[in-house]
Amino acid sequence: MGRATARRRVTRVRAGVATTVRPDTVVGEEPLEIRVGGRALAVTMRTPGDDMDLALGFLLGEGMIAGAADVASMRYCVGRDGASGRDGASGRDGAVDADGRPTYNVLDVALAPGVAPPEVDVTRNFYTTSSCGLCGKASIDAVRLRSRFTVADDPLRLDAATVTGLPDALRVGQRLFATTGGLHAAALADADGVLRAVREDVGRHNAVDKVIGAAVRDGLVPLAGHALVVSGRASFELVQKALMAGVPMLVAVSAPSTLAVDLAEEAGMTLAGFVRGDSMNLYTGAHRVALA
Amino acid sequence: MGRATARRRVTRVRAGVATTVRPDTVVGEEPLEIRVGGRALAVTMRTPGDDMDLALGFLLGEGMIAGAADVASMRYCVGRDGASGRDGASGRDGAVDADGRPTYNVLDVALAPGVAPPEVDVTRNFYTTSSCGLCGKASIDAVRLRSRFTVADDPLRLDAATVTGLPDALRVGQRLFATTGGLHAAALADADGVLRAVREDVGRHNAVDKVIGAAVRDGLVPLAGHALVVSGRASFELVQKALMAGVPMLVAVSAPSTLAVDLAEEAGMTLAGFVRGDSMNLYTGAHRVALA
Repeated sequence: MGRATARRRVTRVRAGVATTVRPDTVVGEEPLEIRVGGRALAVTMRTPGDDMDLALGFLLGEGMIAGAADVASMRYCVGRDGASGRDGASGRDGAVDADGRPTYNVLDVALAPGVAPPEVDVTRNFYTTSSCGLCGKASIDAVRLRSRFTVADDPLRLDAATVTGLPDALRVGQRLFATTGGLHAAALADADGVLRAVREDVGRHNAVDKVIGAAVRDGLVPLAGHALVVSGRASFELVQKALMAGVPMLVAVSAPSTLAVDLAEEAGMTLAGFVRGDSMNLYTGAHRVALA
Repeated sequence: MGRATARRRVTRVRAGVATTVRPDTVVGEEPLEIRVGGRALAVTMRTPGDDMDLALGFLLGEGMIAGAADVASMRYCVGRDGASGRDGASGRDGAVDADGRPTYNVLDVALAPGVAPPEVDVTRNFYTTSSCGLCGKASIDAVRLRSRFTVADDPLRLDAATVTGLPDALRVGQRLFATTGGLHAAALADADGVLRAVREDVGRHNAVDKVIGAAVRDGLVPLAGHALVVSGRASFELVQKALMAGVPMLVAVSAPSTLAVDLAEEAGMTLAGFVRGDSMNLYTGAHRVALA
């Protein structure tokens, strides 16, 4: 199984001189294929670990499940002798490597009875084409139509100091970043500003999927009264993931995009960006932050 | 048409006090659908601008074209009256918005005669499943099989000071970052360390596609003797894009992943990470950097 970190040989250079040549800790990256009912749905390059949470969060974000009750089981595809089902017969399905060892990079999700399987075209790349116009407004409408939850009336309210303190708390929880310097992080904060488990990943959307997936598993979705904290920028996709999970506030260390602001505005979500030191920009939903 | 930046109202907060409420410049984000021969291939969330370069770079990175000669024409789908071809008939194809205005978010690429159209499954999300194992090694093999160029014997050699100076040069060229703080950037450097046009985008892979696509358009691919400079981390995908374009060196301001290091090593590419100030880490191909 791929690991969250691994060692690689590195030549450190300073002022034109090679100061050391030694192993360095590097963040792990491996492909993960998410299958639903044995059928490939998406492949994402992720940092190994918390893969089932990643899958749960991904499926929730795409609107395919509403919660843990919509999933009957999840398992890694590990065999090529047929013992693990349809995916094991040929040995050419990615569940094992060239030496016959399980890769733990293929995860199959069995939906609960009565839950509709995803349509073929409903992938991360193609879903926006199902709407009648391919533009920012159409993308926003498509997400709003898919969302099972609303956040506009969520009474969450946090002190400004609590909000600006969230990135620091996130950084403290970044175990892997400390050793590799190479990960995005995400976490959920409750109404007291206390962070739930921090998740890290080479992919920013994966870190968010892992965090939200853990909440799905714990039966906490919709995540009313929570804020989602991310170490990087606030893109459309992250606002979408927050909305699909019923999160009323997104706190980003860095900049938002136009479409992220517009979706947050339409959804009635609070969007804070450039949250650094004791400063921040409130792009939408400023009423949820108590100012002095 | 979507713009590279736009204004959004923002409440600036400092030490718990709202200091100003005024319009702020935010980086633009809009979906772009890339079609080949009228058929949807991928949708990416990008910053509008240089869309044709983005498409060229994307197609090169996926191994679908070898250069500009493989493309007969490119055009935005803009009509719904049928005048612009098969995509214009229904008005429900994304080429126009709800008011009938062109979105400039759908780009159709006509391949040159004799160039094979992409297979249905060859999308960004699914291509890795076509190999016989879904693991890091298989991903590397798949990319190596697809690459039309080799970089292992490229004689490029840069002084250490030239390499460490590239991120600063990149930052100087970031026109949009200065106003929005919200973009990834990429550029190509020649053997003298001189940067070609800097490209910025909300998506890190898009910035690289735009840079490489411009080189495709100018007939510069394979990009022997060039370095690709990126403002963020070095993931597997970025090493892949560099290799597919024949670039022998990747210079990243931040951390690489395991799979990025492994692909660079296998390909004989130089990979420099954490390039900051006068320091850097050389993960592979250190022979291309002249040390004191």
